[in-house]
Amino acid sequence: MSELRKKSPADLSAKLAGETRYLHDLNFPGQLVGAIYRSPYAHARILSINVERAKQVEGVAAVLTADDLPSYKYGPTKFKDWNLLAKDRVLFIGDEIVAIAAETKEAAQRALELVEVEFEPLPGVFDPEDSLKPGAPLLHEDVESNKPMQVSVSRGDLEEGKRKAAVVKGGRYYSNRVYQGHLEPVGAIASWSDEEGITIWAPSHIPYRARETYAAGFGLPEDKVRIIVPPIGGSFGAKYVLKVHVIAAALAMAARRHVKIILDRYEDMITAHPRVPLTFDIEIGADEEGRFVYKELTVYADAGARVYWSPNVVSTVCTRADNIYHFGSVKSEGYLCYTNNSPTTCMRGFGNAEMLFAVESVIDEIALELNMDPAELRLKNIVHQGDTTLHGYRLDTCKLDECIEKVKELSGWHRRASLPPYRGLGLAVANHVSGFRAIDPRFDGSTAVIRLKQDGGIEVETGEIELGQGMSLTYARIASKILGIPEEAILVKSGDTGRYPFGIGTLASRSTVMGGNAVQKAAQSLAARLKELARETLGEAADFREGAAVLEGQTYSLSELASWYRARHAGEELEIKETYVPDTDLPDATYFGHPSPNYPFAAHVAEVEVDPDTGRTKVIGYWAVHDSGTIIHETMAKGQVLGAIAQGVGWVTMEDLLVKDGKVMNPSMMDYRMPGANDMPKAEVFFIQGKDPNGPLGAKSIGEVALDPVPGAIANAIAHATGKRGYALPLSAEKVWKSLQNT
Amino acid sequence: MSELRKKSPADLSAKLAGETRYLHDLNFPGQLVGAIYRSPYAHARILSINVERAKQVEGVAAVLTADDLPSYKYGPTKFKDWNLLAKDRVLFIGDEIVAIAAETKEAAQRALELVEVEFEPLPGVFDPEDSLKPGAPLLHEDVESNKPMQVSVSRGDLEEGKRKAAVVKGGRYYSNRVYQGHLEPVGAIASWSDEEGITIWAPSHIPYRARETYAAGFGLPEDKVRIIVPPIGGSFGAKYVLKVHVIAAALAMAARRHVKIILDRYEDMITAHPRVPLTFDIEIGADEEGRFVYKELTVYADAGARVYWSPNVVSTVCTRADNIYHFGSVKSEGYLCYTNNSPTTCMRGFGNAEMLFAVESVIDEIALELNMDPAELRLKNIVHQGDTTLHGYRLDTCKLDECIEKVKELSGWHRRASLPPYRGLGLAVANHVSGFRAIDPRFDGSTAVIRLKQDGGIEVETGEIELGQGMSLTYARIASKILGIPEEAILVKSGDTGRYPFGIGTLASRSTVMGGNAVQKAAQSLAARLKELARETLGEAADFREGAAVLEGQTYSLSELASWYRARHAGEELEIKETYVPDTDLPDATYFGHPSPNYPFAAHVAEVEVDPDTGRTKVIGYWAVHDSGTIIHETMAKGQVLGAIAQGVGWVTMEDLLVKDGKVMNPSMMDYRMPGANDMPKAEVFFIQGKDPNGPLGAKSIGEVALDPVPGAIANAIAHATGKRGYALPLSAEKVWKSLQNT
Repeated sequence: MSELRKKSPADLSAKLAGETRYLHDLNFPGQLVGAIYRSPYAHARILSINVERAKQVEGVAAVLTADDLPSYKYGPTKFKDWNLLAKDRVLFIGDEIVAIAAETKEAAQRALELVEVEFEPLPGVFDPEDSLKPGAPLLHEDVESNKPMQVSVSRGDLEEGKRKAAVVKGGRYYSNRVYQGHLEPVGAIASWSDEEGITIWAPSHIPYRARETYAAGFGLPEDKVRIIVPPIGGSFGAKYVLKVHVIAAALAMAARRHVKIILDRYEDMITAHPRVPLTFDIEIGADEEGRFVYKELTVYADAGARVYWSPNVVSTVCTRADNIYHFGSVKSEGYLCYTNNSPTTCMRGFGNAEMLFAVESVIDEIALELNMDPAELRLKNIVHQGDTTLHGYRLDTCKLDECIEKVKELSGWHRRASLPPYRGLGLAVANHVSGFRAIDPRFDGSTAVIRLKQDGGIEVETGEIELGQGMSLTYARIASKILGIPEEAILVKSGDTGRYPFGIGTLASRSTVMGGNAVQKAAQSLAARLKELARETLGEAADFREGAAVLEGQTYSLSELASWYRARHAGEELEIKETYVPDTDLPDATYFGHPSPNYPFAAHVAEVEVDPDTGRTKVIGYWAVHDSGTIIHETMAKGQVLGAIAQGVGWVTMEDLLVKDGKVMNPSMMDYRMPGANDMPKAEVFFIQGKDPNGPLGAKSIGEVALDPVPGAIANAIAHATGKRGYALPLSAEKVWKSLQNT
Repeated sequence: MSELRKKSPADLSAKLAGETRYLHDLNFPGQLVGAIYRSPYAHARILSINVERAKQVEGVAAVLTADDLPSYKYGPTKFKDWNLLAKDRVLFIGDEIVAIAAETKEAAQRALELVEVEFEPLPGVFDPEDSLKPGAPLLHEDVESNKPMQVSVSRGDLEEGKRKAAVVKGGRYYSNRVYQGHLEPVGAIASWSDEEGITIWAPSHIPYRARETYAAGFGLPEDKVRIIVPPIGGSFGAKYVLKVHVIAAALAMAARRHVKIILDRYEDMITAHPRVPLTFDIEIGADEEGRFVYKELTVYADAGARVYWSPNVVSTVCTRADNIYHFGSVKSEGYLCYTNNSPTTCMRGFGNAEMLFAVESVIDEIALELNMDPAELRLKNIVHQGDTTLHGYRLDTCKLDECIEKVKELSGWHRRASLPPYRGLGLAVANHVSGFRAIDPRFDGSTAVIRLKQDGGIEVETGEIELGQGMSLTYARIASKILGIPEEAILVKSGDTGRYPFGIGTLASRSTVMGGNAVQKAAQSLAARLKELARETLGEAADFREGAAVLEGQTYSLSELASWYRARHAGEELEIKETYVPDTDLPDATYFGHPSPNYPFAAHVAEVEVDPDTGRTKVIGYWAVHDSGTIIHETMAKGQVLGAIAQGVGWVTMEDLLVKDGKVMNPSMMDYRMPGANDMPKAEVFFIQGKDPNGPLGAKSIGEVALDPVPGAIANAIAHATGKRGYALPLSAEKVWKSLQNT
């Protein structure tokens, strides 16, 4: 099996040895290089496009404009505002106008330089609040306003809550534009054949949605689009459904050759689909004992020029945090706003990490006002096991209280009162989902195929996607434990819409619980079937256990069982398909529902030291305690938490994709600083384990809940260290230094 | 669906419009051309191979000799006598020694010319009987003799039979070397990738056996070999498992590029794997009333230099015809013999057509001797419905008697006594199998997957192969009838070992009954599941009929049902896999068994006119009456019979692959004459229909039984016309003319 295992993106040794073949390493004979002519204007009318000179360049195989392509409107969500290439107007700097495929990069570049486009610049709008004002330039003519979506959530009696409030805290918080910072820039290879249609090698972790979206873009049946997912070199939300995939496909159809486009870092960053910037006007009220009585929120989200996954971010922002505290009453208004910035999308945390930055900051402000220990205040208000939350989440398991107690203990929380100056300890908590019922209102869950190979190995097929989080190792371990065979004998296969079962994909922290439950169900069915097979073959006294058939002390290997099966089934291998459908409730029009099979929780403490001369924050200690049910693969789970801490340190203290009038001001890794090893605090990760009844082997998710509390914990630690509340991420050295000057 | 249907090789309109993309039409970017340096000697020692100059040719990407390749012995049957390339010895003219891949055909050709091989010619053996004599050169050093296989079958008391015989007829009959005459020469495209291993686009109608064979040849796990089958441009047995596929793969592995090899007609014909030449020493005895009392047979089969499918031909020759007549007692000895001719293999009829040529000739001789009507003699001796035959075939249905009566009526058999000179009417009958249990002793049967697509279309996947016989149309019709939906909404997919269920393949006339039963079972399961689904969704009063869910007069389309299913199954489409395992018995060591779910029968009459001046036979009338149970697709079934008649006319009256000292003397379509439209008689095809309990919709096979009686019928007509019995096929003008000179 070891040879086969190398095919698995889960093979860490292959990654460490540099043997993993990412998109960059994939090349096909006769492959062309794709390039894109992009708008230099944030908003402009296209008066003319002349590609005649570009077409004359030697080595150019295809030059496409909107006129060469279908004009369907499409998009990955219900908001269909994508085109294949811009026709009459461009809506952001980087908007795609002309696509070129050539034999070499140099030829493509020369052709790009010869493209002539005449523009009439138009006034742009760059601030989401401004975009809603009367007279703001309208981005999409077929939409009434620049507000594709508004979320209104109201639960409980807000007025009553306000009357009860003894203390009210809040203000305008801001979560910034964060570049996902994947090592591998976005890209694709596409091909066309009459038999198969379009094939796209695309690092996407929701390839089935990508297939549906791209098929609509070309007006093709879904079966004529196949997405193959190579190992993904980082995504964090950036690699869902992307225009670059579609453009590669359009070029491949025109040139009838493989076409590869990988953006360079500059192009990736100017057209990045970063974390949705969010402006929160928030207020939380508490009574004299510190019991929360209301939360009120207005949020403006910058969708940029087109809708990617920002709608889902807005609905998460308006609801998720209300399921971790008993707020008594809540009212949220969320506005998704078109601007002439490049389109934004989700990033790990999917709005919850952003919202919790504000919520956890406000709660610390309340604790300060009430002179209460912030941990105490939280313990007084958090949800508990058995609760149904304000919006309907049913908490079959919840050890958030234990997480808070444990993180206090591990971090030495008692030191908080006696830290030296400019040192601070900050606490934040978080909840999340393990899959989210509303991602696709049509259905939720996951399907796994499990197959006994002739050689006694096991293949597991899933529609969910490995993106480095350890999905494949996790699934192999689930099957291994149920079947009693070594993980090395199990090959997890995924990432090909033409071969594997349908999957909603890896988002909303769904892979462990959704796909894992499907794998568990399939492995259990296989074990039962193998027992039957042993009895059919050896007699009623036979059994299947620990990976082998047994009768009277004699064991028969899986490859023997495979032969028995094939003998009875015309040579076909034993294959079982099982679908897991979660027992959840689709949130209703008021956003009430039980959208996830279970809910993970976390409590984090950060310790920071702020340099008062520079304002620079150094995170010096970090403690993360998690309730993610049973931890299936501890190494990978810890890796998720440590990675999230690093990501949070970067986000809160340094990362900021600066945009001015729609133009990215720091589109390079020199100017966009991300954390290095030296920025990592000493970190301790602890799991309060327990068996959740709805998770595979008792597991809940870990991927996003690991990041959700980090901004709040670090922000609270900085406020504790400096006595100054930071309202706008990042809490960069400059901002912290400035806040200290006002003392 | 119409767009999708074009993917199906069953789409006749695409074939007629020239839109079907055969291997020849498939090309991959960067594809190399492969070429093979072959032995000019029928038997020689290789003293040295020098490819240094060949390697220097510009554009040459790979030059391989046996030293570059693994040295596993492998082969498609249990006789493992294949190599990848010849190392020390060559065994026939055309034996592969050096393989070359180059950018162009010209470069490959130049490189071929620069290959230097030093040979030491060895004495060869070219006649199968000679090859068994002491002192004959031994072809394979690891085998004791030139006789890889001997078949001995004995049933009943032969001595008793001989004592009872009042009339004995027989002699030495000979069935010749026939080129399958496929329009498309053999070839392959192969590629290699680290992820997938070897992929071979090969027109093979047993691709899973090909996969197993080639994996063994390279010492790879089966999963590292994938066979994709493009539409097949004719085969008739020639395109099973072929060295050219393996050599393309070896070159692709070396060059890491796609490599295409298609033999030209000359190369195809000199290395052809023609119909196994068979020499029959046969004797049949009958009592005074014309009841057969024994049949005795010795047969020598020329395997050529390596074993392809000749062993199965020999065992068929030694048994099949004994299941159509009550011979009383039989004794057969079959010898498979290595010679230094190019390897031979099966061709439509698989030994049965050859054997029946001899048997039906001898029976007409007996009738002549007894002064009986040949039809009468047959009716007296044939098997009937309900019989178990001499070798164990259980005939649940058999309308051979009706076939004979009907063909007499249609042909105007009564005219036989009063035909003008040199006109003759000849009758022959035949049986066959619908799949053969002993093809793979491990298992038999077939698996089908049926899938309800989102758009309401149906996909059927099978491991069996369309080779123009109409399999896909037949499967679509089976599913259509069961589900009550139009055939146009059904796409039959097959021909990819990496995607579709396991299949033994299209041989032994198995596709209709084996694969068809699997499709029938899968469609029935789907219909039942759709009824359940309708009830789950609409309530217990709902039903599924005529392709739609119905409730209170309201109908719900298949695409609605598809949505209902996906909603409950996490987006996965409804897919059912069913395996059909026939209720047969593997023939035992004595060749006793019930190897097929059912047995088709046929009675044919040919009318000929012989030109006494030239000896040339013109078949002027032909009547074919068949018992193939229910005829599922009458157009395709008739096509099979008409094609068989044409093929038989060619075989009996003109086709002969002439070999002298191992060298093919007529390797061109100019010199190897095949029948044209003008050679076709006016033909009438009639089906005596009936429902066989073991066939899908009641069907039995048609593909081979259509050819089986043709040589006998034409030979008997010639004997009737000329008064001279022809013993050796073909009954060419020259031979018939010579026979007339002896009058």
